[in-house]
Amino acid sequence: MRVGYIQTSPVFGEKEKNFENIDKIISKNKADILVLPELFATGYTFSSKNEVNSLSENLEGKTAKFLINLAKKTKGLIIGGYVEKSKNKLYNSAMIVSQKGILGNYRKLHLYYKEKLWFSPGDLPLQVYKFKEINIGVMICFDWFFPETTRTLALLGADIIAHPANLVLPYCQNAMVTRCLENKVYAVTSNRVGSEKRGEDNFQFTGKSQITSYNGDILSSAPIEEPFIDLVDIELENVRDKSINAYNHIFKDRQIQFYF
Amino acid sequence: MRVGYIQTSPVFGEKEKNFENIDKIISKNKADILVLPELFATGYTFSSKNEVNSLSENLEGKTAKFLINLAKKTKGLIIGGYVEKSKNKLYNSAMIVSQKGILGNYRKLHLYYKEKLWFSPGDLPLQVYKFKEINIGVMICFDWFFPETTRTLALLGADIIAHPANLVLPYCQNAMVTRCLENKVYAVTSNRVGSEKRGEDNFQFTGKSQITSYNGDILSSAPIEEPFIDLVDIELENVRDKSINAYNHIFKDRQIQFYF
Repeated sequence: MRVGYIQTSPVFGEKEKNFENIDKIISKNKADILVLPELFATGYTFSSKNEVNSLSENLEGKTAKFLINLAKKTKGLIIGGYVEKSKNKLYNSAMIVSQKGILGNYRKLHLYYKEKLWFSPGDLPLQVYKFKEINIGVMICFDWFFPETTRTLALLGADIIAHPANLVLPYCQNAMVTRCLENKVYAVTSNRVGSEKRGEDNFQFTGKSQITSYNGDILSSAPIEEPFIDLVDIELENVRDKSINAYNHIFKDRQIQFYF
Repeated sequence: MRVGYIQTSPVFGEKEKNFENIDKIISKNKADILVLPELFATGYTFSSKNEVNSLSENLEGKTAKFLINLAKKTKGLIIGGYVEKSKNKLYNSAMIVSQKGILGNYRKLHLYYKEKLWFSPGDLPLQVYKFKEINIGVMICFDWFFPETTRTLALLGADIIAHPANLVLPYCQNAMVTRCLENKVYAVTSNRVGSEKRGEDNFQFTGKSQITSYNGDILSSAPIEEPFIDLVDIELENVRDKSINAYNHIFKDRQIQFYF
């Protein structure tokens, strides 16, 4: 299985330009799973709900069409973030698409900072998607902070966590090592680079997109400031058996009667 | 508040010698909380249940007496691991003592490797102990691997996690950064050094006892191979408010309806 990410530097509000920039990076790469950043087509630092609304789409919009076309090139699954509008609510979402169309939609559960002014928190259960033989869990950016997110996805059977992000804090890349170890899963964190100064907010995104192995190894780490693409080969059988030695099985060993 | 650890190199089966070695290290240190390693008086690498039984104690044994005397010197709380025997069961436990006597007892929930042959898993709820103004949660070694342990202790109100350990894997010290960040708590991991070759087992303990801050900073890191003591001053008010910015509160933001 070949999995990877594109790390981009979105131009705020310029969807077509952001699509073009990804087309330039992707060229002829084949990938079973390719993860794009959170809100990769729109940028992140909104200044009003009207602005968020004007950049919103549903699963039949131009971002969906772009990603389905992209999947025709990679021949695999693409996971990428977008501003979703559904029944007059706005969500910070990620769509999961193949060349055949939309496979799923995830609405970010844990909103960070002013996202709470623009978006409704996710109202759909965490879910695992199947593509070929891979079970894929999806979470977005700040979801990493809550160990329950990755844990729930792993208990649902995820082999790999697709993790679109727009990280501004410096902690996530290192935390993903622990997230993968404690659940014996792979993870692909696709972060963005660049900065956005809008109104009183001035965000510097931290780059360093990362592919993390079930054993805590960092299989790929992107630069801090430049767009980047990387793909690595992984073995699914490594994560299907949750034993870590002859005595310990990380799910069976849970003492859930004592957990809150 | 002054908190810290003693990192020791226990001699297997030699309780008196291990007590003496700690007395030599501690001298005149005052500490509100002092954490000793898991099984600090007995060593770790048992070869039979009879052997474990022969080293077991209850809360009125010589290890309890030693720790209460130690607390008279530090004028604070001591947390240290021991082999507990209770109603014919053996537990990998830690006692929490002050100069006045026993304050609490924790039985390790998540047993590692052959500990499963010797010990029963903990059968007591996770609990937070109060000393002066500090709320102290206790977990032992491999409990770190399960994010639910620290999470439960933090939800119970722990300001600081006292974490006696005998670490043989290389992951815990780094994972404690994430454990502290995700729960906004301090942690004191007291590890041992040295090696134990007994029967087919040959463990090299990883040292690097660590005091980790609620913001992910490592406030103290011990050497890999030598006994060591360190104490640092911490501020409790930093961990009592679980807000991390004007919009996010790490407990109120939990979306428990979607967690397994």
